[in-house]
Formats: sequence, structure tokens, C-alpha cells
Amino acid sequence: MPENTTYQTSTQIQLSSRPTGWPTPENFRTVTVQLDDLGENQVRVANEFISVDPYMRGRMSSAKSYVPPFELGETMDGSAIGRIVASRAESLPVGTLVLHQLGWRDVSQGDAGAFSAVPELPGDSPSLYLGILGMTGLTAYVGLTEIGPVTEGDTVFISGAAGAVGTAAGQIAKLLGASRVIGSAGSDEKVALLKEKYGFDAALNYKTAPLREQLPDLAPDGVDVFFDNVGGDHLEAALDVMNTHGRLAICGAISQYNATEPTKGPDNMANFITRSLSMRGFTLNHHLDKASEFNEKMTQWFGAGKVVYDETVVNGIGNAVDAFLNMMRGANTGKMVVRTGTPDND
Amino acid sequence: MPENTTYQTSTQIQLSSRPTGWPTPENFRTVTVQLDDLGENQVRVANEFISVDPYMRGRMSSAKSYVPPFELGETMDGSAIGRIVASRAESLPVGTLVLHQLGWRDVSQGDAGAFSAVPELPGDSPSLYLGILGMTGLTAYVGLTEIGPVTEGDTVFISGAAGAVGTAAGQIAKLLGASRVIGSAGSDEKVALLKEKYGFDAALNYKTAPLREQLPDLAPDGVDVFFDNVGGDHLEAALDVMNTHGRLAICGAISQYNATEPTKGPDNMANFITRSLSMRGFTLNHHLDKASEFNEKMTQWFGAGKVVYDETVVNGIGNAVDAFLNMMRGANTGKMVVRTGTPDND
Repeated sequence: MPENTTYQTSTQIQLSSRPTGWPTPENFRTVTVQLDDLGENQVRVANEFISVDPYMRGRMSSAKSYVPPFELGETMDGSAIGRIVASRAESLPVGTLVLHQLGWRDVSQGDAGAFSAVPELPGDSPSLYLGILGMTGLTAYVGLTEIGPVTEGDTVFISGAAGAVGTAAGQIAKLLGASRVIGSAGSDEKVALLKEKYGFDAALNYKTAPLREQLPDLAPDGVDVFFDNVGGDHLEAALDVMNTHGRLAICGAISQYNATEPTKGPDNMANFITRSLSMRGFTLNHHLDKASEFNEKMTQWFGAGKVVYDETVVNGIGNAVDAFLNMMRGANTGKMVVRTGTPDND
Repeated sequence: MPENTTYQTSTQIQLSSRPTGWPTPENFRTVTVQLDDLGENQVRVANEFISVDPYMRGRMSSAKSYVPPFELGETMDGSAIGRIVASRAESLPVGTLVLHQLGWRDVSQGDAGAFSAVPELPGDSPSLYLGILGMTGLTAYVGLTEIGPVTEGDTVFISGAAGAVGTAAGQIAKLLGASRVIGSAGSDEKVALLKEKYGFDAALNYKTAPLREQLPDLAPDGVDVFFDNVGGDHLEAALDVMNTHGRLAICGAISQYNATEPTKGPDNMANFITRSLSMRGFTLNHHLDKASEFNEKMTQWFGAGKVVYDETVVNGIGNAVDAFLNMMRGANTGKMVVRTGTPDND
């Protein structure tokens, strides 16, 4: 593929068929389209990074959900960060760094209103706007403030803790006053990272023994807040150890996204009554009003060096599907992003 | 047994062994004990009615819960309403009607602080203090105001709707502004009663076809608030039809109280995320601060004839165990109470 330095074309990933169970590369196709001339008030953006996120799996199915499904034969979308390379909008001159939702492609184009200018990050990668400084961080923040509010001295358990949202959640829980933060992850390396880099007080590898056996030892005083990215056995094990008035913030259920049969829920639902538990599922679209509060706090925490992060960076729009599939399998630590920009668009 | 008109003895029900699965009469024994002379500030109460409630099944097991288990070989306790027949407490003269927790016996005795004077109910049975005017009504009220708050225009689904809490909940939901109230019950007679007497807009007999098949037709616009007394298939069916931001108030899980194996939870837990659902289990002990607000409102509703009720009355302390077992099997409509008072204590 020729280098895309004149930005006349856009290489895009489309959904060609709906996956049953685990998606495969055959469910996707890559197309390169010639871009139309810019209309009035439109801009063209050379993306630097695009985001691949677990929730996108839901959009690959046809089921009605909180975001509409991806259309078959159409280019998918999602978060991306890039720079204006052509503009017919005064508000967004060439060179402006913009965050937007027309991802899964190397060059995006549309009405200026669909692109938000964001401050440059001297010394840091703009990909952080897809992670800790963006939706990922906001998701963790909303879950721990609005949904399963953490209060001073709480014990917090985070499932899938080495992922993008999990690593953010662990640190935010501590900053909000949690006295003990416990995480689950799928390898011993991730477990070590959680404890050594991210400040988790305890962590377990859920692949080495049933979670229900491991978790009680790590939570001798029970759990007050459970932040769930995984569902299934994680939710069931958490319900075993929740304290009275415990809160469960259900952010994701990655263990079930590729299930082909309905999976039975926890066998200990009666604990909701005997322990006065509350559980809330949430998606960020209902909580965007928390963004400015989050931006203020996270800017402060980040500037003070109180928040660290990892990124798993895959190069080339042509590898975006692999990046997504590997992320679903847990190959990433921290945020998985695809670098679509220089030095090479493929 | 001789008539107990001098109140020198008390006939009491004790737990003699812990049930596995469904309780049987053999798990209980009836004893008649000679009462001690009253100590200073003590009172003796001839009970008129004692309460049998689903939550008592939990206390028959040894598992730690929000109320301590009944002790083996000791007299059980629970709500009761009676009249002071001997008093060494100025605050509670002979003849006072009192509500208290020393039930499962025909005559109760103890410190005055354990007994609360309540107003006489001219023309109504004092047993209402065990039902619609008491903990039963308060449970329904708390569930629909604090836990799964009902707002104007909501559709509310109530499981086990012909029981004591269910019949109260259906009416309170309407009084709080629900536009459509749906109930489930275990017989066609109960279904008819819900619609004809209790003002339910729709009701179903869960024994005639799977709930998951029946409920969607009765809830064409979905369900905003689910008040659950049953658990199991009722919770699963409700999760299928909950609207975005729906609230689930989990009051009971009578379908599981006698299970001998853990029962798998709903297979549609992912709906919590995609529909932003919230679920809270509750027990009344954490919400007694709502009692005065409830008393005020319910007195007004009741006085204005806006609330109706049923009672299933069983006569004689000797039949209390049967009353409890029949209530667990759903033989009652409305509140199940045992009349322990005149004309005959057995």
C-alpha cells in the first residue's frame, strides 16, 4: 500500500459479517476509499491513534443495545485522536489536535462539530486521550464515584484489573480513599504489575485456581465495592465476600461477550437480600456530565505524578483487527491502541 | 389443654431441629411453661395474634444473616399483638394494646421497653398491626420509595403479588403514581383477586406457563420497577423486560428459601450493563427510620378507604406451625396470622 501522505484516501475497517462467538479476521475487511472534497465547515483529520475497546464486540452483534450495532458492509467507528490536515472550518485550523468518534480508519473526515480540539500534551503521547485521560479514565471514575461510590476506608475489588479501565480504577479507588484494593488478572506477570506498579494491595491470577477459592483469602475483611469488567465467575465470587451495604458497579462482562449460549448467573443472588447489596450496570453515554469534573481531577492527579499507565501499541491500521482480537483475549496490559499515523500508514 | 385465662402459663413454639429443604412439623415442638412472677418494670401480655412470615425460614437455618438464627430448643420469636394482662410498669397499664417481637407464644412477658403501645382500631382487627398497618405495609412502602423508587407513570411488576407484602405493594405503587401494575401469583383465583380487588392492571398465573413467555405480553412498554418477593425465574423474566434505568427492589426470594442446592442465577445479567439497571436487596431492619412517614401516609390512605387487604386467619397457637408451613406453600391470600387469643387458646 502506498504511503498516505497526501490524505486523498482513507483506509478503513468494515464489518463484513456478524461473528458468532469469538470474532475472527474473516468477519472484517479493509478497504481504501477515495475521499470527497471537503464541504463547507468540514475538516479532514490524519489520525494518530485509534482505540479498540471491549464494548465494540457488542456492536458487532445485531442485538439492540445502548449503542446501535455496526452496520454490515459499513466502516466501524470508535474513539480516535488525530490532527487536522485540511479544513474548511475556521474553528479548527490545520494542525489542531482533535478527539473524535470516527475511528477504525487512518483518515477521518466530516463536519467540524464531530471533532473536539484538545490541548497538546508536551512530553506525552496524544494516545492518552484514548486511555487514562479519556473515556477509559472517565469510565473508571464514574464507576467509583457515581455507581459504586467508594468511601474512605473501603475495600475495593476490581476484576480484569490489568486492562485499561482496571488499571485506572485501581489507582482512582486509592485516590478516593480506599484502604485496600484487590485486583484479578489472567497472568502472573499482570498480577506482579498490579502490585508493583499500580499500587494494588493484593492481586490474584484467576487462571491458576477457582476465584471463589482465592478471593476470600485476599479479602479477610470482605469487599465494600466491586468494580466488574468480567462478569460470570468474578461476579459470583465477589457476591460471596461482599459486606453489608456493599456496592457492585457493573462496567463490563468480557467473559460473556463471545458466549454462544446464555450463561447462568451467580448462584448466590440471595446475598442481595441478606447483605442489603446494591448493583448498578452502567455505560458511559449516560454519564458524560461527569467529564468536566473528571478532567479537572485527572489533570491534577496526572500532573502530580499520582497516576501511571501502560499502553499496548500496535502499529498500522492494517493490524487494527488483530489488535482488537488480542485485546479481547487479554493480550494487552493497560490500554490497547493502534498507531495509524506516521511514520507509515500501514 | 385447659383454658389459659389466668395467664400463669405460656404455650410456646420451639425449633427442635434445623430443617433441610422444606420444614416439616417434626422440626418444631410445642411446650407450655409456667411463667415467673413479674419483675419490676415488667409486663405480661395475652397475645391476640402472632405473625408468621417468609423471612422466618432463614432464621431456622444456622447460616449467619441479618437477623440471628433461632436457637435450637428455644422459643422462636416474631411480631405479635396483644393486650397487657399484668403490669409492674406505670407506662403500660393493664388493658393496653401492644405490638412486640415476642411472638410464637400465646402469653409473652418481659421488660416494658420491649412492648410498644399502639392505638385501638375501632371496627378493625388489631391483627392489621401485623399486616398492612405494620411491618408488611412498611416493607412494601420502603421497597417502592427508598429502594426501587416508583415515579409517576411507571410500569411496576410485583412477584408473589397475592401475598401480604405483594397486595400492599400493588396498591402503594398505584398511590405513588404508577400507571400500570402487573402481578404474578400461583392460582387463577389469586390472579382474579389481584385484578378485581387490588387494582392490578394485569396479572398472571406463573404455574400455567413459563413466566418468560407470559410476562412480555403483559408489559408491552417494558417494566420500570420490579418488586421481587420470589427470585429465580421471576427475576430472570423481569430482567428480560426491564426498561433502561429500570430499578429492581429485591425484598424476598421465597422460591429459594427451601432449596437444598445452590440455584443458578439469571442467564441475562448482561442486561444490567446494556440497560443501565440498578438492583438493591433490602431488609426492613435498615429502614425503620421510614416508619413514621409510613404510618402517617398509611393512616391517611387506610382511613380514606384507598387500601384494602386480605387476611388468612388460623386459630390457635397449636396450629401456628401449620400456618407457617401453609404460608410458605402459598396457601394464604394476603397476610397469614395466627389468632392466639380468645375464645380459646388452643
